[in-house]
Amino acid sequence: MATVSKATAGRVDIAPNAFVVPMAQTIVGSMAGGRPNFMAVAWLTRVNYQPPMLGVAINRRNFSHGAIAASGQFSVNFPTVDMTAVTDYTGLASGARVDKSGLFEVFHGHLDAAPLIRECPLGIECRVHTAVELPSNTFFIGEIVGAWCAEDCLDGDGAPDPKLLRPMLLTMPDNRYWAMGDVVGRAWHDGKALRVRAGG
Amino acid sequence: MATVSKATAGRVDIAPNAFVVPMAQTIVGSMAGGRPNFMAVAWLTRVNYQPPMLGVAINRRNFSHGAIAASGQFSVNFPTVDMTAVTDYTGLASGARVDKSGLFEVFHGHLDAAPLIRECPLGIECRVHTAVELPSNTFFIGEIVGAWCAEDCLDGDGAPDPKLLRPMLLTMPDNRYWAMGDVVGRAWHDGKALRVRAGG
Repeated sequence: MATVSKATAGRVDIAPNAFVVPMAQTIVGSMAGGRPNFMAVAWLTRVNYQPPMLGVAINRRNFSHGAIAASGQFSVNFPTVDMTAVTDYTGLASGARVDKSGLFEVFHGHLDAAPLIRECPLGIECRVHTAVELPSNTFFIGEIVGAWCAEDCLDGDGAPDPKLLRPMLLTMPDNRYWAMGDVVGRAWHDGKALRVRAGG
Repeated sequence: MATVSKATAGRVDIAPNAFVVPMAQTIVGSMAGGRPNFMAVAWLTRVNYQPPMLGVAINRRNFSHGAIAASGQFSVNFPTVDMTAVTDYTGLASGARVDKSGLFEVFHGHLDAAPLIRECPLGIECRVHTAVELPSNTFFIGEIVGAWCAEDCLDGDGAPDPKLLRPMLLTMPDNRYWAMGDVVGRAWHDGKALRVRAGG
């Protein structure tokens, strides 16, 4: 039986300053006016298992919003911890005023309007499946069409090795970037001891 | 001008093994049959700025799916790196077979069907705003009604301090849990030097 308590003693209600802690920091790529455009985005997640889909939340005031809505395509690029300044810049400078196409070396995989960043060891190409309109943001759900990982960041099983990807994390509202730390456990594994004990 | 190259040399297409790297590991709480139920979930993100909303992707085969759909409420709890085994267990054992209500001390904030976990220093209560039906998963978008942070995990500004929250991260498909590492930069700040240089 659960010990159910209504007490919120020792707790402070911080909503609306509640965020997912931490968030993977990415750079979303789009094409606007025939040029690659980039924007720092940390509000994203996988949303569907099969077929693989992910979603990104973009404020309708951002220049990238119109570009993604128009082309129906976008990319999600994972910068390394060495790339904090340029990543942050893509979030400070609007594509409506500044040409950000020269910030990175760009390549394309399967899609025309999902520019991939050479400097980022992992880049995912998406075709928009659904655009969910929310009060201030659109949540663009994209089917993953391609996902290009640098060969030297693969582990022995051919999967991306997070230690080699060296991704950047973001926390809000303190607005800091972080590196990943140490391995603390194995998923779909460490709970097995409890499973035996509980008979579950 | 961007250097545009079609070459994917040195890159391997890993789709559909593409995930967000890394993901915050959480435990989603729901009420089923009058009892708190819990499930490990790492597919989540903030999706709207104002009002604050977040979304969680739940496979329709999971017991929690029916509970959230029925009540229209759920919680998102952030376990610490010390809680890998019990967190992992909530993802291994289905609520259809096992009573997981006794795993944690539960309390309630503003909602009746969003059980909060005392052992987790941050817990967010959500009321479902939209349920987006995708091929295998439902993406439940919830308005953040409350977010309860342990007082001893707040920083000087009254915001959660990630170092004190000590959140767990997950990477897939290698299926490992991680701690956060060191601060590597400041967001909405480190890019300012480039802004001056580019005139943006």
